[in-house]
Amino acid sequence: MTIDYSQRVSSISGLLAARELDAIILAGPENLRYVCGFTGTSGVLVMTRGTTRFLTDARYATQAHAEVAAERIDVYQQQVEGVIAELAALGARRIGFEAALAYAQVEAFRDKAPKTWQWVALQEDLQTLRLHKTGDEISAIEAATQLNAEAFADIRPLIRPGVSERTLALELEFALKRRGAEEKSFAFIVASGERGALPHGVASERLLRSGELVTIDFGCRFNGYHSDETVTLAIGRPPQRLREVFELVLAAHDQAIAAVAPGVPLAELDGIARAMIAQAGYGEFFGHGLGHGVGLEVHEAPVVSPRSRLVAEEGMVFTVEPGIYLPEIGGVRIEDMVLVTAAGHRVLTSLSKAYQDVSSC
Amino acid sequence: MTIDYSQRVSSISGLLAARELDAIILAGPENLRYVCGFTGTSGVLVMTRGTTRFLTDARYATQAHAEVAAERIDVYQQQVEGVIAELAALGARRIGFEAALAYAQVEAFRDKAPKTWQWVALQEDLQTLRLHKTGDEISAIEAATQLNAEAFADIRPLIRPGVSERTLALELEFALKRRGAEEKSFAFIVASGERGALPHGVASERLLRSGELVTIDFGCRFNGYHSDETVTLAIGRPPQRLREVFELVLAAHDQAIAAVAPGVPLAELDGIARAMIAQAGYGEFFGHGLGHGVGLEVHEAPVVSPRSRLVAEEGMVFTVEPGIYLPEIGGVRIEDMVLVTAAGHRVLTSLSKAYQDVSSC
Repeated sequence: MTIDYSQRVSSISGLLAARELDAIILAGPENLRYVCGFTGTSGVLVMTRGTTRFLTDARYATQAHAEVAAERIDVYQQQVEGVIAELAALGARRIGFEAALAYAQVEAFRDKAPKTWQWVALQEDLQTLRLHKTGDEISAIEAATQLNAEAFADIRPLIRPGVSERTLALELEFALKRRGAEEKSFAFIVASGERGALPHGVASERLLRSGELVTIDFGCRFNGYHSDETVTLAIGRPPQRLREVFELVLAAHDQAIAAVAPGVPLAELDGIARAMIAQAGYGEFFGHGLGHGVGLEVHEAPVVSPRSRLVAEEGMVFTVEPGIYLPEIGGVRIEDMVLVTAAGHRVLTSLSKAYQDVSSC
Repeated sequence: MTIDYSQRVSSISGLLAARELDAIILAGPENLRYVCGFTGTSGVLVMTRGTTRFLTDARYATQAHAEVAAERIDVYQQQVEGVIAELAALGARRIGFEAALAYAQVEAFRDKAPKTWQWVALQEDLQTLRLHKTGDEISAIEAATQLNAEAFADIRPLIRPGVSERTLALELEFALKRRGAEEKSFAFIVASGERGALPHGVASERLLRSGELVTIDFGCRFNGYHSDETVTLAIGRPPQRLREVFELVLAAHDQAIAAVAPGVPLAELDGIARAMIAQAGYGEFFGHGLGHGVGLEVHEAPVVSPRSRLVAEEGMVFTVEPGIYLPEIGGVRIEDMVLVTAAGHRVLTSLSKAYQDVSSC
């Protein structure tokens, strides 16, 4: 597919004016991929109002010429010296950089550059850069969610008493990669029985048992973009209380998704799910935000939480993932990815989230 | 196994005096694991001359109490505010931090703390912290290299004409994880035929063919510690020139390893391999350093290159990995991990590096 990088470069140019910068340097791999198409691990894009230049080392020269949309591509011997020489040649004196860079890297630039140069950390400005997904981005995300559905179907027969959480996590990862996923999105959570009370219960050696729930939180990367999805399944008949908690979480999840539309404050979406859970008496057991943006990073803007200040806008992609965690008893989390559309929303993940007893299939 | 954290805390205490610091805060996961045993992903160790205190969020409270060696363990609501309150309570005014932290995180500490406090970036001081491996660390590294050997034996029958580089990389990863590896060390390099000329030729869809070489650079993490190893194999009979290059790289690798002993400058080890390759007329085709340290990170101190300033010391673990890369023709890299011992050295990786034609097995 052909990506229109000029549009993305324009967004950055706006930032040059707004922050009164002569230049912006980008080095984070996700931002580089987004703004100029580079998929390697080491390079710097130098942007001024007049030009964009990409610099990398000899290892990536061929790849950069094949991938990068920039007016010029140069190879440096040493990154810091090479970038400073380029900035000097362009007459830049006030330079914006990504606040996500390592402190040591920023200091290296400062140390080697003339002391009169000013360095400006860009944080929120850049976090919103990738907020509105374009068609090609949505296609990549949907390919990643499709891999989720197919791989989950592959390993579904393994979800039964006696299998370990770790085995499930591994086989799910293998299935995703066999089907073409580039990488898993994160260390998968497989939390069964009382471990379901751990919101971040990375798969352990615990064996699944009959009469409990298991929460599986997983996803993958495809063409640079991520999927992120959580199912909670029953193995036989769990305690009635957990069954009730399941229906409550599912209802909160459904109601929050139903409300997604352009113009709705993200904090209000969080509030819909949170109020339902609180009214049922479980407020203190839902200790995290409702969701987060997903794209080139599996956690990116926007945050969907009580503290969110943004409103839903067309093209945003974020998760809706309420959960209830009862210490030493168990827990439920249900998660889908949602795209905000002009008409409202579209759910991008496709696995059923309805209550299912896997032992009856 | 029981790890003596007090020894590690003492190393840091030396740094407090040397850099005239009231406190050091550690947040990098490898340093946290090393100094206090924490294996979670979010927490801060605050160290002064008198005490060590570990702070984390509610998610990790239970885990921290089970794992962490510190005089006190506290839970914060917000990391930055929590750490600053702890530093204030301890009377710290001049605080060292890891230069590897994100710039934004350091700025958050600076913004919220009294303006009179001084913040000191620690870089080389901390890089040498984990330089000398103890017995438990060497055991974990050897377990990771043992997994390399076993998993490679598992997938060895797959290395034949018609299989894709990507399939080989995936099956090797799966074999490592099935045998207990926590994670792969990095995106595996499987570079066959002319792709062998790419020092970082991550596995592609290219199919292996008879009459060529294939370079496989891989490793895994076990108990937090990494392995890293490269084999170059023949499939049938490659061109005579590549066969000669293979023997040259192997000889350079063997000679450099033979010279490893306490007191030998690391730059001299690099020089042994580099001189042999240069004398044979291939100097310009060996464009990277001879090796790097391996431990809790797969790339850590010491660097082994012409610019190394350290000498080999007992307990150091590093790779020896000369390579020759002939553009559009192919390449060879051969890599082992070496431990510096009192008597000289011990090679920790065990796969044979001798010339082998896999099609004759």
